Amino acid sequence: MTPPASGSDTVTAALLIIGDEILSGRTHDKNLPYLGRRLNELGVRLAEVRVVADDRAAIVEAVNAMRARHQYLFTTGGIGPTHDDITADCIAEALDRKLIENPQARAVLDARYGPEGLTPGRLRMARTPEGAEIVENPVSKVPGFKIGNVYVLAGIPEVMQGMFESLSHELVGGPPLLSATVVAALPEGDLAQPLGELQARFPDVGMGSYPFFGQHRYGASLVLRATDRDRLLAARAELIEMVRAMGAEPEIGDDPA
Amino acid sequence: MTPPASGSDTVTAALLIIGDEILSGRTHDKNLPYLGRRLNELGVRLAEVRVVADDRAAIVEAVNAMRARHQYLFTTGGIGPTHDDITADCIAEALDRKLIENPQARAVLDARYGPEGLTPGRLRMARTPEGAEIVENPVSKVPGFKIGNVYVLAGIPEVMQGMFESLSHELVGGPPLLSATVVAALPEGDLAQPLGELQARFPDVGMGSYPFFGQHRYGASLVLRATDRDRLLAARAELIEMVRAMGAEPEIGDDPA
Repeated sequence: MTPPASGSDTVTAALLIIGDEILSGRTHDKNLPYLGRRLNELGVRLAEVRVVADDRAAIVEAVNAMRARHQYLFTTGGIGPTHDDITADCIAEALDRKLIENPQARAVLDARYGPEGLTPGRLRMARTPEGAEIVENPVSKVPGFKIGNVYVLAGIPEVMQGMFESLSHELVGGPPLLSATVVAALPEGDLAQPLGELQARFPDVGMGSYPFFGQHRYGASLVLRATDRDRLLAARAELIEMVRAMGAEPEIGDDPA
Repeated sequence: MTPPASGSDTVTAALLIIGDEILSGRTHDKNLPYLGRRLNELGVRLAEVRVVADDRAAIVEAVNAMRARHQYLFTTGGIGPTHDDITADCIAEALDRKLIENPQARAVLDARYGPEGLTPGRLRMARTPEGAEIVENPVSKVPGFKIGNVYVLAGIPEVMQGMFESLSHELVGGPPLLSATVVAALPEGDLAQPLGELQARFPDVGMGSYPFFGQHRYGASLVLRATDRDRLLAARAELIEMVRAMGAEPEIGDDPA
């Protein structure tokens, strides 16, 4: 999809997914789609994602590249109790802060595990860069943290989602991107030219074409995205006419909301 | 997981996923897990993944950063017939080559669509950087292409997989990373310290801990990875003893193969 022209009010975010288990194909990431959808509802556009191994140099480099370019950076993974959980160390290094035992985090862990249960491994989970604030974890208590524009969240999807919802009120978004979908049972190769012409007339409405093949049908989902509802509806009306003129009855999907 | 010490014989690859529809959460990527697993079987480690929007500057920058660092770069998405399919243009720009009508690709499209079906949109799919070779598409014919160490593949998973399998014989890998899994019904916070000690004694065996929570059980999957089968088995034997010494009966997963 051609992105709609981004105004200076566009707020963007990046996501850094940390973990060998994602790169090996063993674990399928579910955090990207969740964050992409939820951020957009809040007026924040997920603009870049990276996946790196549990490797210190790779994490530090990605954190610094991404936090400089976007209003928000979220990381997922690597904040558990074991030796391979090195995210806090890497964030401290990237931001050039000391790694400390965070008193807020320590208090949560004390309450959660008690003096006997607080093993050296679990105590690792109290470490944050100096100056970080904790992000509450309504699912399993052990918190994430936030420092500057970097939010450090868990990798387990249920926990990540809980943490995200507990911080989401802090995010300041721009106008959310509205979308409208028109499904056409036509070959994408036939749609390409008229769709490109329509795009040229609506530079402020992003238009994407996503072909599908099934056993009994094929065609393309044509997705329009814009921050201006009237322009979105105007483009959709023309798109519907375009598809009809090509001899197919369009299916009209999710209403712009 | 702490990556096993990488020798100079480690072959790495990167994956660039191109498409707004992935970033918006609308489409869930399935290509990363497939490529991560298949590359590893071929002795190639997927070391870095990025997801970018259908945005020319973002694609060009990512292509140049990633192709310089890894033996192989794969891209997925953006090679269809519509105006938002700009991957070929971006690869040409990144590699500073002219974008041409590729005669091999044109021949495939002629055979697939015939003179009447070859719309201007479909003809876009014959464009590659000068000097590129096509990658066969056994699923829907329209080819991908390869130039230098960059392989440009489709985004639709079935098509991407077909293209990958048709090029996989070209890849020259190092020794594949073998893995072994031991599942322990123990809290990760208790496992952390002895596992860290085991890791310290086996620097050549990567050890990762992936906690899980279910309604009726919880624990951690402990995953060992190494290129040396004997060292992997030695580490696994010690890990099994470690879990038993902690009072749990380990479940032993996939055998190293």
